[in-house]
Amino acid sequence: MPAPPTDLTSFSQPRYAEVPTFMRTPLASDWSSVDIGLIGVPYDGRVTNRPGARHGPRELRNMSSLTRAIHHVTKVNPFEIARIADLGDVRFQRLFDGDGALDEIADFYARIREANVVPLSAGGDHTVSLPILRGLVGDGEAVGLIHVDAHTDTWDEFQGSKYMHGTPFRRAVEEGLVDPKRTIQIGIRGPQNHAEGWDYSLNSGMRVMFMEEVVDRGIRETIAEARRTVGSGRTYLTFDIDSLDPAFAPGTGTPEIGGFTTREAMQLLRGLSGLDFIGGDLVEVAPPFDVGAITATAGAGLMYEILCLLATAFKARPTA
Amino acid sequence: MPAPPTDLTSFSQPRYAEVPTFMRTPLASDWSSVDIGLIGVPYDGRVTNRPGARHGPRELRNMSSLTRAIHHVTKVNPFEIARIADLGDVRFQRLFDGDGALDEIADFYARIREANVVPLSAGGDHTVSLPILRGLVGDGEAVGLIHVDAHTDTWDEFQGSKYMHGTPFRRAVEEGLVDPKRTIQIGIRGPQNHAEGWDYSLNSGMRVMFMEEVVDRGIRETIAEARRTVGSGRTYLTFDIDSLDPAFAPGTGTPEIGGFTTREAMQLLRGLSGLDFIGGDLVEVAPPFDVGAITATAGAGLMYEILCLLATAFKARPTA
Amino acid sequence: MPAPPTDLTSFSQPRYAEVPTFMRTPLASDWSSVDIGLIGVPYDGRVTNRPGARHGPRELRNMSSLTRAIHHVTKVNPFEIARIADLGDVRFQRLFDGDGALDEIADFYARIREANVVPLSAGGDHTVSLPILRGLVGDGEAVGLIHVDAHTDTWDEFQGSKYMHGTPFRRAVEEGLVDPKRTIQIGIRGPQNHAEGWDYSLNSGMRVMFMEEVVDRGIRETIAEARRTVGSGRTYLTFDIDSLDPAFAPGTGTPEIGGFTTREAMQLLRGLSGLDFIGGDLVEVAPPFDVGAITATAGAGLMYEILCLLATAFKARPTA
Amino acid sequence: MPAPPTDLTSFSQPRYAEVPTFMRTPLASDWSSVDIGLIGVPYDGRVTNRPGARHGPRELRNMSSLTRAIHHVTKVNPFEIARIADLGDVRFQRLFDGDGALDEIADFYARIREANVVPLSAGGDHTVSLPILRGLVGDGEAVGLIHVDAHTDTWDEFQGSKYMHGTPFRRAVEEGLVDPKRTIQIGIRGPQNHAEGWDYSLNSGMRVMFMEEVVDRGIRETIAEARRTVGSGRTYLTFDIDSLDPAFAPGTGTPEIGGFTTREAMQLLRGLSGLDFIGGDLVEVAPPFDVGAITATAGAGLMYEILCLLATAFKARPTA
Amino acid sequence: MPAPPTDLTSFSQPRYAEVPTFMRTPLASDWSSVDIGLIGVPYDGRVTNRPGARHGPRELRNMSSLTRAIHHVTKVNPFEIARIADLGDVRFQRLFDGDGALDEIADFYARIREANVVPLSAGGDHTVSLPILRGLVGDGEAVGLIHVDAHTDTWDEFQGSKYMHGTPFRRAVEEGLVDPKRTIQIGIRGPQNHAEGWDYSLNSGMRVMFMEEVVDRGIRETIAEARRTVGSGRTYLTFDIDSLDPAFAPGTGTPEIGGFTTREAMQLLRGLSGLDFIGGDLVEVAPPFDVGAITATAGAGLMYEILCLLATAFKARPTA
Amino acid sequence: MPAPPTDLTSFSQPRYAEVPTFMRTPLASDWSSVDIGLIGVPYDGRVTNRPGARHGPRELRNMSSLTRAIHHVTKVNPFEIARIADLGDVRFQRLFDGDGALDEIADFYARIREANVVPLSAGGDHTVSLPILRGLVGDGEAVGLIHVDAHTDTWDEFQGSKYMHGTPFRRAVEEGLVDPKRTIQIGIRGPQNHAEGWDYSLNSGMRVMFMEEVVDRGIRETIAEARRTVGSGRTYLTFDIDSLDPAFAPGTGTPEIGGFTTREAMQLLRGLSGLDFIGGDLVEVAPPFDVGAITATAGAGLMYEILCLLATAFKARPTA
Repeated sequence: MPAPPTDLTSFSQPRYAEVPTFMRTPLASDWSSVDIGLIGVPYDGRVTNRPGARHGPRELRNMSSLTRAIHHVTKVNPFEIARIADLGDVRFQRLFDGDGALDEIADFYARIREANVVPLSAGGDHTVSLPILRGLVGDGEAVGLIHVDAHTDTWDEFQGSKYMHGTPFRRAVEEGLVDPKRTIQIGIRGPQNHAEGWDYSLNSGMRVMFMEEVVDRGIRETIAEARRTVGSGRTYLTFDIDSLDPAFAPGTGTPEIGGFTTREAMQLLRGLSGLDFIGGDLVEVAPPFDVGAITATAGAGLMYEILCLLATAFKARPTA
Repeated sequence: MPAPPTDLTSFSQPRYAEVPTFMRTPLASDWSSVDIGLIGVPYDGRVTNRPGARHGPRELRNMSSLTRAIHHVTKVNPFEIARIADLGDVRFQRLFDGDGALDEIADFYARIREANVVPLSAGGDHTVSLPILRGLVGDGEAVGLIHVDAHTDTWDEFQGSKYMHGTPFRRAVEEGLVDPKRTIQIGIRGPQNHAEGWDYSLNSGMRVMFMEEVVDRGIRETIAEARRTVGSGRTYLTFDIDSLDPAFAPGTGTPEIGGFTTREAMQLLRGLSGLDFIGGDLVEVAPPFDVGAITATAGAGLMYEILCLLATAFKARPTA
Repeated sequence: MPAPPTDLTSFSQPRYAEVPTFMRTPLASDWSSVDIGLIGVPYDGRVTNRPGARHGPRELRNMSSLTRAIHHVTKVNPFEIARIADLGDVRFQRLFDGDGALDEIADFYARIREANVVPLSAGGDHTVSLPILRGLVGDGEAVGLIHVDAHTDTWDEFQGSKYMHGTPFRRAVEEGLVDPKRTIQIGIRGPQNHAEGWDYSLNSGMRVMFMEEVVDRGIRETIAEARRTVGSGRTYLTFDIDSLDPAFAPGTGTPEIGGFTTREAMQLLRGLSGLDFIGGDLVEVAPPFDVGAITATAGAGLMYEILCLLATAFKARPTA
Repeated sequence: MPAPPTDLTSFSQPRYAEVPTFMRTPLASDWSSVDIGLIGVPYDGRVTNRPGARHGPRELRNMSSLTRAIHHVTKVNPFEIARIADLGDVRFQRLFDGDGALDEIADFYARIREANVVPLSAGGDHTVSLPILRGLVGDGEAVGLIHVDAHTDTWDEFQGSKYMHGTPFRRAVEEGLVDPKRTIQIGIRGPQNHAEGWDYSLNSGMRVMFMEEVVDRGIRETIAEARRTVGSGRTYLTFDIDSLDPAFAPGTGTPEIGGFTTREAMQLLRGLSGLDFIGGDLVEVAPPFDVGAITATAGAGLMYEILCLLATAFKARPTA
Repeated sequence: MPAPPTDLTSFSQPRYAEVPTFMRTPLASDWSSVDIGLIGVPYDGRVTNRPGARHGPRELRNMSSLTRAIHHVTKVNPFEIARIADLGDVRFQRLFDGDGALDEIADFYARIREANVVPLSAGGDHTVSLPILRGLVGDGEAVGLIHVDAHTDTWDEFQGSKYMHGTPFRRAVEEGLVDPKRTIQIGIRGPQNHAEGWDYSLNSGMRVMFMEEVVDRGIRETIAEARRTVGSGRTYLTFDIDSLDPAFAPGTGTPEIGGFTTREAMQLLRGLSGLDFIGGDLVEVAPPFDVGAITATAGAGLMYEILCLLATAFKARPTA
Repeated sequence: MPAPPTDLTSFSQPRYAEVPTFMRTPLASDWSSVDIGLIGVPYDGRVTNRPGARHGPRELRNMSSLTRAIHHVTKVNPFEIARIADLGDVRFQRLFDGDGALDEIADFYARIREANVVPLSAGGDHTVSLPILRGLVGDGEAVGLIHVDAHTDTWDEFQGSKYMHGTPFRRAVEEGLVDPKRTIQIGIRGPQNHAEGWDYSLNSGMRVMFMEEVVDRGIRETIAEARRTVGSGRTYLTFDIDSLDPAFAPGTGTPEIGGFTTREAMQLLRGLSGLDFIGGDLVEVAPPFDVGAITATAGAGLMYEILCLLATAFKARPTA
């Protein structure tokens, strides 16, 4: 068995030191000794408004040096549970060649699945969740989905393409990757020019919790609703940073006021512990629009929360 | 009847495209085909501290490209209810000539009233609400006022003038434009050197809800109190962006910590639907002090909420 | 008796005018006519991550021009209760000479104590609270401590030193300056690599309220818990700006998401009125990482809240 | 003859007022009364590094309010020579559909040519110069090219496409749009991973003036060389803002140190007066990476210089 | 004789320490012991475009902590030649009362003249130079003027007033304060909508060196021309920071590309040593538009150069 | 012989992708296969003013992704000449323990010397050059020094220590590490409170070229003077980013106006090709004070120039 990559001697150095890997984990080229892989997907080619999420992985790595090991509420230490490493970024050769980049992402995650690595990905725009799911789920059974976002991302097409950051979960349902009955969308808000996306989500059977419902019922009931919706089956978690309020995440492409605080988001994520997560992502951090690293700090902190969820799920699995 | 200005083909273009008008509405020079006019008042000549609100209209236009048509909670689509256009900015020839600018604003709004246009204005500093009311109300009956702000703006004078951004509503009462008994001030907070402004508001019969009362009783009771105060008569809505907490609106001249979140502000505004609003404004967005467009994003989003209120009121009016 | 320093004619000038002293109080070189002294401690030589708090005093002075006299909730006017002045900064000659700077701070505060001045200090990193306490408490009885922070700052050592911004309150207990039984730490959160600091606080008898407990029980019960813990004895108040959420305080060295809003922090501080405070500090404002002066605005506003606490305590004291 | 669009009454308003059009010219939908059209091309889909030039047209419009009419050296007033209007942006429906956007740009400029409008375009990334030339030149004779840039943009392909911001002028030569013998590239610098682009430029017969030659020989000789190279024939001018030094243009995707000052760039452009320019563009202004509007101020000022060149050429033409 | 204010013990403290006075000089309320007074004029009420110069004095004070005593080229130490102090800011009570603020500035400088203090002022917008000259020159003989600026500031009126930042030197000539034959304007550039200001300067007999002439002839000949123009008589020096290129001074209201570098500006100023300067000012630093303190650093450094000029002139005067 | 680390397949990825190492070179833990090592020294514990250079190595790595392989003037490709790798950062355990950090740096570079690696270091404040020289030179013969800086850094002590960023080269002479007769300091400028540092440099025999001499004589003669001074012996190159003008390098601790442009700095460095450099460093990049990455872009570009110098020297050495 290969040496574990999770040698966190880097934790003893000042946080500003050394090349920034995700949460100061080692860079691993050999995936066989990795349980949970932290992966960058620097792609933002399909956004409707402000670009820049391609710079997300680097800045999330940079600010993730501030995270540490033991969770202050749950006392979970993911680095003791699983072998965790930074796997670098998805590599691209066909960024400008039609949908080539999406294929390259899907291929990467198919290999991740083969390597039995649980991926925690940093986008990139939300388009990337579709090829991630293609790679991870493949021909397997459709997975449950917990989707925290200001937007349902179930629109149909834009500017001549079915594949952009407002459509991934409609495509994922159509392609049998995600089970709409086991899907919950949390934090939806903001005006729309057409009701089409909202309608698709509802008509396909997804549970849509608009922000107002979340506020009215509180985070605890929201958690209960999420757990009820996805049940005990295999589930994917996708977190769009624009689910946070712009005061907590100004650095994103399509901000919507009236969103989550980080405190609420952390509480929400913590409440999902024990679900059978096969992976997760945090997307739409766009550093060129960030200020004071507010968004990247939030993104890195929430990635740590998701990492704890993935580690807990990993531990509970027979194969772990 | 002239062609409706609300041809929103611009909605199909990416949000970063084209010359930025308010909410991507058409620029209209012919006011006869306009029901609701979006107007910039780029004046900040009477602030006590940081200037820059003169740049507010442009930046609010810029960020308002992110708003869209259908409200996600109420499903109101103001663009289907009313003909909405950007009427450009109030034009000035006498900015440095005593109170000339205030006269020019008042003249502009008198013409707006004659044209039967409901105005939604973007300041500028809060001084502008006084000449707007002069133009809109004229010799008519004093209107009710819903005033969301950190400050009562009922001080008496400063630096040798009765007309500045801390005095408009005292003047408006004195001039018979606003009925203090039908006035509510919401979100007041922050220390003062003299109690004079607070006292004037209370003594004149205004209902003053300090921020602590709002927090203690909650947004729903605050809404009820506001509705009770203004009743069914004609009412004006003025929203000072410094009512928001500086985390949600750093770009303003006199920030006060402990303010509203955008979520609360949206809930508050939504709760006012059905009142007989004759116009509204959003003031004190000072882009030179903004970062990451946090303030302008909030301002544009809240202008959309106010637009929904004005459209709903417009629809309910016999003349609509 | 010397003329009172609290001649606030500066309050009549625009806030952007004149050399910025703390809250526009006069600069005093003669301490004999000062009851409460506002003091800068521009030292950040012992931080684990991002430096810059050395620039805190200047920027807090700058933004403190926005504060005013009368508290809008309590109607307390500290400037009428006590003679308040800006005493300038602690002066350094031994910044690079071992722990010389800490000795210089302690010496300064020993003189403050001798002059019967109640100090309200602006850091600087949290290391400075230790020498402040050394100077203030000296050989006297250990004081109670209300400590608002994201971190317990009771770690043992780092990078070869016992004295850095993660250790001051462990040292303060060891040196008999602070009574752990009369100490409460509020707002603690964020992952840690070792539980050592948390353990020390709990084992020494401190009351540790993690952020989640604060949220669950609410600010009012938190206040009650704090009052219960410190009782009626002499108490010091230390406020680390990173207790606020990074959206409300991005400009700090070790931000932790999920923190206080300014509204909560103000409510918490107000609730402590009547305790026998002998001094207070606000630390870890790091302007180079601030944006839109969000952090400095919060810091200056919270310093005003603390000033009200100190003035109220001063007034209640027989010697006042 | 239609009314002239160049009614510059807007010049009498403060520069921060009104909806920002290019240089405060009127927005024209009727092109028949326009001699020179100012056009935005908000496309940045093919950059190798930092995106954001899609936001260039809006910000260049915004800052162009600072430009005025009469050139202080030449006394040329382009607004008296020609009817100048803002034609808005190229409209897109196929942004995500292969090379659809490039086709839409080419179609737009073919219509510009048919309308006998001389275009001054604001990018967008440098890719857009290719479809602009396709539209403008069409099947006509290859034009001369003055190309000011840090990079030759004559690479062959990248990430699976022949069409990106490093290839437009190689394509333009291959497609017979540009005559390499009448092409000069000025300001080239910065390391490269392969010499391929440099080689293509030289081998195809272009005159390549690396920055060092420009500095050694001075701007006057550079002007002479440029005039000699393009001669009296029809010529296009393309100005990449990254030809400026990053101190003068930080807001661009691929900055290269050691570039032009604005003073040099203005002198260079002024020296080209009298050449038969059929159009020009200024590209690669990426506002998300700009600070203090340094780049947009430079871009707007240089667009004014180019406008003077186009107006002078327009005036000299028999058809004017 | 009172104790000299120039006790620069503050020089031994770190530059970030203490309340920031200009160049860390003592704050003096007793002018009788001051030879050269550093004065802030925080007024920007008459700008055509971007406001913010009211914040100039504070930020120039802040960054001036970086300047030191001995000039590295001339070895002049102004602090040994003259007693230098920070006199605080001009105080205002009539900011919003017509031209009251200008009167208050004039009154202040009349007292400065009476006190025999040589003033070095920090604006504020350029309007302030007129009342400064009114106070300093009074009924005395018109003085010579060296005016470094992008604009001649000899326009006639704007927005209903003769007094704004584009008119001070026309007024100063009309009022007999400045001798146009002994006036030189250096660095003029940028387009204008009307030639009126340029014409006035030339017609009144001023020597106008447009930027191009400065560049063509070089700084040394520019110095010679300036010395020739003003001769040996009493002369005032006014430096508008927008004479610098926006890369060196982005934080100003009306930036013009193609300006001076700081190196050129320093060389120019140094070359004026020995002229009989009776005072000087540096205006139009607008911190809200500054980034990275680039402008304030330049402004503070240039103020030091001007201080050396004033000290040298002071030393040469019989009264010194 | 071990496999070469200079596998630059990363060059084919977009520049924003992957973990940022210096110039996208591989991270090497085995130094035996490295000829030139790129090293971060994240230490800024001894600065007189603004801290932040500890963040320099990370940000220089980040922006160095924009550099490429072949020099556009010299056609040198350092990656073909030498095996180049990123060696990570110097590791610290004694940052707060007296001068422990300096010892740790010296130990690191002693090992670098033993490994026959030529170091190119990124600071960190200028203090680090002293322990680097201690490690590199050891007991060997004193080396020549080319020192580009605004300050001589030959002061004696500050705040109780002989070791800070204003003293390294005085110490280096005293310790026999640097030969003052073979030392040249280029670009010195800015006022000083005492002439002591200037005097030490001159009295010890160093050649000091103040900025004015550089400007008067031009870069070519400056190069000649530098070559003459250091001759053919072993030489170290140290480049303080504050030698650049603040417009080109705002992000540094003690900016001085009137500095180098990047164009001049590049020309200067290129002119030093062929000298026998044993290593070099670029220091004082302080990202918290940078804007638009102007400073880091300059720093990364200049590091590439220095790399070419080191590679050329490496190639010329018999041992290469």
